Amino acid sequence: MKEPLMKLYIGNRNYSSWSMRPSVLIRQTGIPCEEVVVRFDSFEPGSAFKRAIAELSPTGKVPVLEAEVDGARLLVWDTLAIAEFLAERFPERRLWPERAAARARARSVAAEMHSGFQALRACFPMNIEASLPDVGARLLAERGDAAADLERVRRLWRDCLSASGGPFLFGDFGIADAFFAPVVMRARTYALPLDDDCRAYAQRVTNAPGVAAWIELALAEKDFLAFEEPYRSGPA
Amino acid sequence: MKEPLMKLYIGNRNYSSWSMRPSVLIRQTGIPCEEVVVRFDSFEPGSAFKRAIAELSPTGKVPVLEAEVDGARLLVWDTLAIAEFLAERFPERRLWPERAAARARARSVAAEMHSGFQALRACFPMNIEASLPDVGARLLAERGDAAADLERVRRLWRDCLSASGGPFLFGDFGIADAFFAPVVMRARTYALPLDDDCRAYAQRVTNAPGVAAWIELALAEKDFLAFEEPYRSGPA
Repeated sequence: MKEPLMKLYIGNRNYSSWSMRPSVLIRQTGIPCEEVVVRFDSFEPGSAFKRAIAELSPTGKVPVLEAEVDGARLLVWDTLAIAEFLAERFPERRLWPERAAARARARSVAAEMHSGFQALRACFPMNIEASLPDVGARLLAERGDAAADLERVRRLWRDCLSASGGPFLFGDFGIADAFFAPVVMRARTYALPLDDDCRAYAQRVTNAPGVAAWIELALAEKDFLAFEEPYRSGPA
Repeated sequence: MKEPLMKLYIGNRNYSSWSMRPSVLIRQTGIPCEEVVVRFDSFEPGSAFKRAIAELSPTGKVPVLEAEVDGARLLVWDTLAIAEFLAERFPERRLWPERAAARARARSVAAEMHSGFQALRACFPMNIEASLPDVGARLLAERGDAAADLERVRRLWRDCLSASGGPFLFGDFGIADAFFAPVVMRARTYALPLDDDCRAYAQRVTNAPGVAAWIELALAEKDFLAFEEPYRSGPA
């Protein structure tokens, strides 16, 4: 009997940066998986979103990956754990670099993104369809912590690209790139300043087919959610 | 030629919850590694701590693992990346569960700790030598988000223990237990309420030799740091 297709449960593509990471990884590397959107109506207890996700994840958040392992249904409810699960299950896709040292560095940068960059994430929530360059310029001037986060992103990208030779952080597109793809989206929305090497990398990420497909679907959503919009009063 | 011993750079043992995780994992599973304390004098730029760590980590934080890989020095600067590096390098220590489904769940809970529980961490900073039951009771009453984090910890521990049969979250002591060891310390310092199963688990973690060794060294430090002490004005 054929194994059932894996399912990745995600939120609104325009807003859900955590959903974007495994989704673009899966698409870009050609892993067979169905994608199920659970629309964000609200994050209040009792919302349709929270009720749907309660069936799938003990944390009540997206993304969640559903897979069959040893004949039983498995739910993996954290983005980094999903990435590791896929890396183990599809070794031929080389989601992590092959060499141990590069792999340890790739894990360090993905994990750094996973737990860090709080100011960058709070000031510049992902919003793919929006164009907010004035917000970007103002907050970078006002918020030293967000500016420091951005400087760290730039240094991290430059260090990885110069060590690997590119085109992606560790050569081919992998988990580390998927983890920074939402930062690329934020740089575009808020016109965050990047030097030439970083801008060229951001463009390569944007053009990668798995990322381009996500952007296209996000732009087609047209689902303005006020609770995800600190800076706009309505759709453009 | 024999490979040089790995080095784990850590902060003050009484306070540094992130340092505790890989350290207790290493000790408890018998991995050969030297431990180097970089004392927290302050986290301001230019402090002795920040100057020492700048040589080792691009994020300026502990822990950092130094190892030799393919004849070159490697620095791994994130706790979860350190855990994965050790799991790969010492497969016989079984730092993750052997079965794929349990391993994916163990990674989900470790990663959930890695990026989450912000309120619990902010309200109840690790402080092994302190006894602050009144602070615990007051903040759990005042801060719904911290109480919700604690409830999630209890549910997570119960779910893992009942699925594995114990004695640790996934059977033998592993990465998931190491990631929650600082929560066990906080439960003790702030007298956070645990049901019987969770209290028994917390006691087993406290008694595990790798954890007990850390506690003993932390208690011997006697290095009161005002910037790590929101609730005490001086040592007990």
